[in-house]
Amino acid sequence: MGMIFKERTKVDVARRIFLDAIQPIEDTENVPVEECTGRVLASEIIAERNVPHYRRAAMDGYAVRSSDTIGASPTNPVMLHVEDEITEGAGVRVHTGSTVPDEADAVIMIEDTSLIGDMLEVRAQMHPNKHVGCVGEDILEGERVLGEGHLLRPCDVAVIASLGIRSITVYRRPLVAVIPTGEELVPRTDAGIPASGMVLETNGLMVGLYVEKWGANARYCDIVVDKPELIKEAIQSNLDADMIVICGGTSVGQRDHVPAVVGSLGKVLVHGVGLSPGKPTALGIIGKVPVLCLPGYPVAGLVGLFAFGRSALRKVGNIPELPDTILRLPLSSKLTSRIGYVTYSRVIIDNDVVRPFMTSGSGILSSVAKSDGLVIVPENVEGYEEGQEVDVVLIG
Amino acid sequence: MGMIFKERTKVDVARRIFLDAIQPIEDTENVPVEECTGRVLASEIIAERNVPHYRRAAMDGYAVRSSDTIGASPTNPVMLHVEDEITEGAGVRVHTGSTVPDEADAVIMIEDTSLIGDMLEVRAQMHPNKHVGCVGEDILEGERVLGEGHLLRPCDVAVIASLGIRSITVYRRPLVAVIPTGEELVPRTDAGIPASGMVLETNGLMVGLYVEKWGANARYCDIVVDKPELIKEAIQSNLDADMIVICGGTSVGQRDHVPAVVGSLGKVLVHGVGLSPGKPTALGIIGKVPVLCLPGYPVAGLVGLFAFGRSALRKVGNIPELPDTILRLPLSSKLTSRIGYVTYSRVIIDNDVVRPFMTSGSGILSSVAKSDGLVIVPENVEGYEEGQEVDVVLIG
Repeated sequence: MGMIFKERTKVDVARRIFLDAIQPIEDTENVPVEECTGRVLASEIIAERNVPHYRRAAMDGYAVRSSDTIGASPTNPVMLHVEDEITEGAGVRVHTGSTVPDEADAVIMIEDTSLIGDMLEVRAQMHPNKHVGCVGEDILEGERVLGEGHLLRPCDVAVIASLGIRSITVYRRPLVAVIPTGEELVPRTDAGIPASGMVLETNGLMVGLYVEKWGANARYCDIVVDKPELIKEAIQSNLDADMIVICGGTSVGQRDHVPAVVGSLGKVLVHGVGLSPGKPTALGIIGKVPVLCLPGYPVAGLVGLFAFGRSALRKVGNIPELPDTILRLPLSSKLTSRIGYVTYSRVIIDNDVVRPFMTSGSGILSSVAKSDGLVIVPENVEGYEEGQEVDVVLIG
Repeated sequence: MGMIFKERTKVDVARRIFLDAIQPIEDTENVPVEECTGRVLASEIIAERNVPHYRRAAMDGYAVRSSDTIGASPTNPVMLHVEDEITEGAGVRVHTGSTVPDEADAVIMIEDTSLIGDMLEVRAQMHPNKHVGCVGEDILEGERVLGEGHLLRPCDVAVIASLGIRSITVYRRPLVAVIPTGEELVPRTDAGIPASGMVLETNGLMVGLYVEKWGANARYCDIVVDKPELIKEAIQSNLDADMIVICGGTSVGQRDHVPAVVGSLGKVLVHGVGLSPGKPTALGIIGKVPVLCLPGYPVAGLVGLFAFGRSALRKVGNIPELPDTILRLPLSSKLTSRIGYVTYSRVIIDNDVVRPFMTSGSGILSSVAKSDGLVIVPENVEGYEEGQEVDVVLIG
């Protein structure tokens, strides 16, 4: 009748153990540049051409030979001819981005000139290469433009496209199988209010939407009731995925079979973490497939997903770690936490002040929907005082 | 021959003028909950049922009448029968989340009990409602769960789904028409290296990918050469969009017709802003359609898009303002800026130090791809010193 966890692994230790067990995906795919935002480069991008590939005018004005402008100034202008080709004493009209003729070595800005009949008054001395963009000024042929593992932003995609590249080799998106478990669950698609004791399945939906948001594909699996053999079947039929997330059945009660089943198929690395809420979280691996077992209580499950799921998915999918959006603001009232546990406290940001959310039950999912962010209190800190500044991680 | 801007509007003034002219979208659509991450609620969500809709056990244990446990303690336990129904002196086995029988008013944790034959030793006194989740504890029927204008996160979607809601009324995604202009442009789909003086069109691609990332649909229009009548036609055929972004032709040179054409069809609100790079940016409105005219130089265009396009799109699409991800870090070397201009300086983050990017040409798009973020220097500040801490806005 042991309801007490034998272990309570520290969050950072548990995360390290889990991440160390995870092998990143090696499969790649070729994706059109237009669809590459948010994808991860599977090999470096080497420029196969110069950008620009010609000497370009950096200003609207006239291409000239700089030697023809020696001594030119507002009080002592030089007069040139305007021609279609560069010869001694001639200037050629150019626009920003257009080709600078080979014989010219500078572009004089239109502001520093005046057209007087067909003669050009030049009022500034140009030095060689002034306002001329050299071949390869932006990108040199052979240059490494972006490295393997780079998370592609639209500006990166534009640079790659400027090299004439039409599709990019990126890592395959990880496939995450999400398995909801629990006697009490009914499918979301069921009409009407469920019977007493039954609830609509929404944890799996939430986990699936988060992993999709974080760059994975989600496989939404059917609900599995709390029977070891059925849980085992469900896991086995999803071992083709890159990661499995199981919702519910992770505690140590009569109906909590998930960690034992994971252990029978592979290895439970951690069961019971110093995370509040989220203590019953279990981390395992079956073959090469990491298995994240989240508590069924929705807030506890969500905190477990934030604390372990996101970094695990990043490792699986070769997705670089990006900093969270954090606001540093003072507390409107005392924020309590559980000593010995990393506490994820839901907070509301209101007029640049942080208000801890009072309903603390880990079954109360609406407390998350009503929250703007989380204050993550380390295990050795016992809450924060009113007025103290805290880091709020925005809930994405 | 006036190459000088008549005005140079301050960035925040220009933005305010532009936003004031923009009408948000009123059209809504009904979208399945599974597809609502990142969408904006077009009406508030009112709960039509209680969550939970029954009294639920908050712990694994036994449902009991609290009055039967009076005086119970480890040294003085009370003995109860284990039954299937609650009667005086009886307990019913319950699991977390299961129904608490009507006649019971408390749940005793299994840790505080022992089964001795068919008798239950109870070692703690329960008060009424202990470990019982009341009806509506999470969400009360009739309660406003989320307000109009809320940007839906996966946790919000899960809460909405827990109410039995299967689709959500959200604002229609804005449609942004992106029109690339310039004599020098050739389509990205052209094979081979373009002729001298010609470049692949990538600004429109970059703008389109950003607006998609920010929650809009992009319409990628064909390249338009620098002829007023063709630019006019292109704009007119896109006035069904919610916003138009035109790339190139915004300066005051011989080939820069875009602001004049916008003015002929509607109103140019601002032309020339105190933004570096990005000074030639123009902001206009044609009927109800905001028109953002970006410089053709890629970095200048991108900065103009960041400075004006994102907030304009948010206003158009009813998308709430979210804070950027900002890191506060010291500079590895002096960062120069242009006094009188809001300067967007590209920087690299390297071992928690901020290194300004030395190539400052606004034609050098690769400087953005090689950068991690932007330091935005206000117009009245003349750069920052080595070692000074600055806010780096990560480039998304």
